Amino acid sequence: MLKLRSSAASPFGRKVKVAALFTGHADKLEMLPTDTMNPADPLRQDNPLGKIPCLILPDGTTVYDSRVIVEYLDHEAGGGKVIPAAWPARLAALKLQALADGITDAAILQLYEGRFRAPEKHEPAWIAHQGGKVERGLGTLEANPPVASATPDIGVISVACMLEWYEFRFSGLSSGKYPKLAAFAAEFNRLVPAFAKTKPHA
Amino acid sequence: MLKLRSSAASPFGRKVKVAALFTGHADKLEMLPTDTMNPADPLRQDNPLGKIPCLILPDGTTVYDSRVIVEYLDHEAGGGKVIPAAWPARLAALKLQALADGITDAAILQLYEGRFRAPEKHEPAWIAHQGGKVERGLGTLEANPPVASATPDIGVISVACMLEWYEFRFSGLSSGKYPKLAAFAAEFNRLVPAFAKTKPHA
Repeated sequence: MLKLRSSAASPFGRKVKVAALFTGHADKLEMLPTDTMNPADPLRQDNPLGKIPCLILPDGTTVYDSRVIVEYLDHEAGGGKVIPAAWPARLAALKLQALADGITDAAILQLYEGRFRAPEKHEPAWIAHQGGKVERGLGTLEANPPVASATPDIGVISVACMLEWYEFRFSGLSSGKYPKLAAFAAEFNRLVPAFAKTKPHA
Repeated sequence: MLKLRSSAASPFGRKVKVAALFTGHADKLEMLPTDTMNPADPLRQDNPLGKIPCLILPDGTTVYDSRVIVEYLDHEAGGGKVIPAAWPARLAALKLQALADGITDAAILQLYEGRFRAPEKHEPAWIAHQGGKVERGLGTLEANPPVASATPDIGVISVACMLEWYEFRFSGLSSGKYPKLAAFAAEFNRLVPAFAKTKPHA
């Protein structure tokens, strides 16, 4: 059995859970709810960065971050399941994952501004700097949206997880600003019904 | 010819430059100095996240982030040059890279606190939160330091780049807190003389 330290809201944790669906690991993943803000949570022993997701293998080896976990799951499944083995498909999938992850990272920093600081310590220039990354990233994806698939690669999975997390935290899909990405998310949900089971919640 | 948007100080850019040494790309990499804070810099067209490094292939395809670039360089060199092809060596190298990258990310957020905010907007809880990641990460590495090698994998390269950047920005190696990591960095420099040519500077 594999153990996954994550949370119900984590977009990177969701990426791993969805990758597990397509690598035959969905029933082999025991979830360990984790509080990244609690210094006593065992997470910081497993991952000194104190970040989720963190996978624990049967022999106790810990694996992080989400990209490395996904590569592990793909390898265990024989390879080429969610990370294409062939180039340039592999490059495209990894780059798309990096873009989706980068959008999420920037949006998390916007979110943390409110979580870690009193209003008088908010810095508009910082929020705008991160917001620019989010908007340019989403704009790039809207101009060239990924194609939903019942057998998605990690790029497509990463975008789907990012979009629904961005909706969950910022109502960013229902804003109407990104109609093609909203259509992609709807189609992804239609093609991958199990995706809904991993929907982020508080 | 490949083009690399980066800066002389970027730890992630350095990781790519060092990977290029071991994948036969060192002489094929044209450096394009990049200012991540300048909205008019072409970087944001090449990478909507506005982050460096960003590689530009001869056909105009852009590749980011540093991990994806390193995988591209390794693949172009036939594979297995800096990213081990065999498991579990591959897992260990990728996890070590993730740890080094995560330490760097947290230290960059500490640095940005001073760069983006007036002193009265600094938040000690945020700085301590990121500092905890840096200290636990470095402590984990000090307890189990990587082995320097003349043919290093991307995990070892990432740690070497992180450590010298941390010294450059925080005098974190000469502090004496991490003697084994300082010895590792010295030995890495001895074994890889070309490493010094990529030393971070302002």
